[in-house]
Amino acid sequence: MTNVAAAEWLAADCQDGSLTVWVMQGSSVLESATANIDAPCVTDSIEAFDAALKSLIAPWQLPRLPVFIAGLPAGGWSNAAPRPVPCDATAPTTTPRTTENFALQVIPPLRQHAPSGLLQGAETRIAGFLSLNKDWDGVICLPGMTSVWAQVSAGEIVSFQTFLTGELAGRLGEAAPANDTALDDTAFDEALSDGLSRPERLAARLSSIRADITLGEIPPPTAQARLAGTLIGAELAAARPYWLGQTLAVIGAGTEARLYLRALSQQGAPATEADGNRMALAGICAVRRAANRG
Amino acid sequence: MTNVAAAEWLAADCQDGSLTVWVMQGSSVLESATANIDAPCVTDSIEAFDAALKSLIAPWQLPRLPVFIAGLPAGGWSNAAPRPVPCDATAPTTTPRTTENFALQVIPPLRQHAPSGLLQGAETRIAGFLSLNKDWDGVICLPGMTSVWAQVSAGEIVSFQTFLTGELAGRLGEAAPANDTALDDTAFDEALSDGLSRPERLAARLSSIRADITLGEIPPPTAQARLAGTLIGAELAAARPYWLGQTLAVIGAGTEARLYLRALSQQGAPATEADGNRMALAGICAVRRAANRG
Repeated sequence: MTNVAAAEWLAADCQDGSLTVWVMQGSSVLESATANIDAPCVTDSIEAFDAALKSLIAPWQLPRLPVFIAGLPAGGWSNAAPRPVPCDATAPTTTPRTTENFALQVIPPLRQHAPSGLLQGAETRIAGFLSLNKDWDGVICLPGMTSVWAQVSAGEIVSFQTFLTGELAGRLGEAAPANDTALDDTAFDEALSDGLSRPERLAARLSSIRADITLGEIPPPTAQARLAGTLIGAELAAARPYWLGQTLAVIGAGTEARLYLRALSQQGAPATEADGNRMALAGICAVRRAANRG
Repeated sequence: MTNVAAAEWLAADCQDGSLTVWVMQGSSVLESATANIDAPCVTDSIEAFDAALKSLIAPWQLPRLPVFIAGLPAGGWSNAAPRPVPCDATAPTTTPRTTENFALQVIPPLRQHAPSGLLQGAETRIAGFLSLNKDWDGVICLPGMTSVWAQVSAGEIVSFQTFLTGELAGRLGEAAPANDTALDDTAFDEALSDGLSRPERLAARLSSIRADITLGEIPPPTAQARLAGTLIGAELAAARPYWLGQTLAVIGAGTEARLYLRALSQQGAPATEADGNRMALAGICAVRRAANRG
């Protein structure tokens, strides 16, 4: 076990139903932990959030430390006013918020009015990517429950577009759970191509996949691959201006990121890959450095 | 209270999470009752289904009567082999199935292979509509958790297309519950027109609506109307060959059916309206008459 006695602050990230905390000394990680959380409960109640974070760091018996936190949903108890887009990507003003056990610095979400959209955590991953890739211009894709395509130029988030792709996949795919090793690449490629060429048929295709799952006529890895290919294909069709001829990065992890990279590569649009958790931490560190300078 | 002592048989229909039973004498309804059911539980377990049906008819202290039932899901305990499409609409062979308290005649689902699809209850409503509208040819739209467009000709279901529209609306719309009286027609019409002209943007639009709901920036009736307009617009775009220049009927009830009728009418495609429960009962009666003749 590392010497957590040297801990100076905590970084925390709330994303897609999980809460991650890093015990930090400057920009070095001493310890980290992740837990699944009951997202609506923790989102709606400051007490539930305080208890979840306290339980996560309990093993280390830390003193009271400042916490920089990303990914808290807009409109909840954190009450951090969303920043309007376009805006500087890396130096938001954090909102202080005190819970029973913690003094939080909340990294605010981003708000875009046309098209209407909200970044709640993705903005910090983007900040992390830019802090590690100075002067990078291009488009960043962040798969997730809500997937994000953000156009970045000269250190600013210029515009973005979000899609409910991951949430639709998760909610419709109960019968065919994701499996990191066994996904059927051929079925994915076929569904992707079909989704890209006739994206308007999304709800019809989802219904067909559901029928096949109900009757048990296709194995779960094939059903899951078709579901992912159909949804990602439709997303790529609608996000075409974001990836066609652009410098691209995909921030994510696991099967999900691999499928986006595969899909983009097949469209002649190769992308840099960056790990989601690593970018979240780098972003939180960048925000803290800016806050300490300011 | 009517004289249920004259009861000869029971008609039952399982649809979108509810179970309806009619106590019948010939083609006359003596009593009826509806209950919400825990759909996956009742679907997966013959014991749970038996208990749900028993509890529903308990007030009438009926003797053991034959039950004709529609809408049991394919692949479950009912094990009724799906009929392939195209097929005769009104005279399926029922599958006998005995539970602890009931002797069931299960009306089988319909299966189409290209595009892959499954009707689990809609086929009986269509049969009911055709039994009341002899020699009717055209396209029947059935809104629901899974919406159905079925092409009917010379008493046959020729082909159909299903969409997960209702399920997507239900699962994404928790924050903005449907309200029969207060739906915002202007917001619906705008979203419908937008959904029809750019259906590929479905997942992006759903994400925008979600952002507005999260921030509480639009009132629930407006959010719900936009959600419905977006989803129905995308469905109409993909189902265009089914409604353009066709004789049309919409089988359903309430706000849902009203929105489909409104949307079709705005596209210059007026439709006959028929009540879903009435058509279900008429269909079950037609199937029973055919079984008694056979």
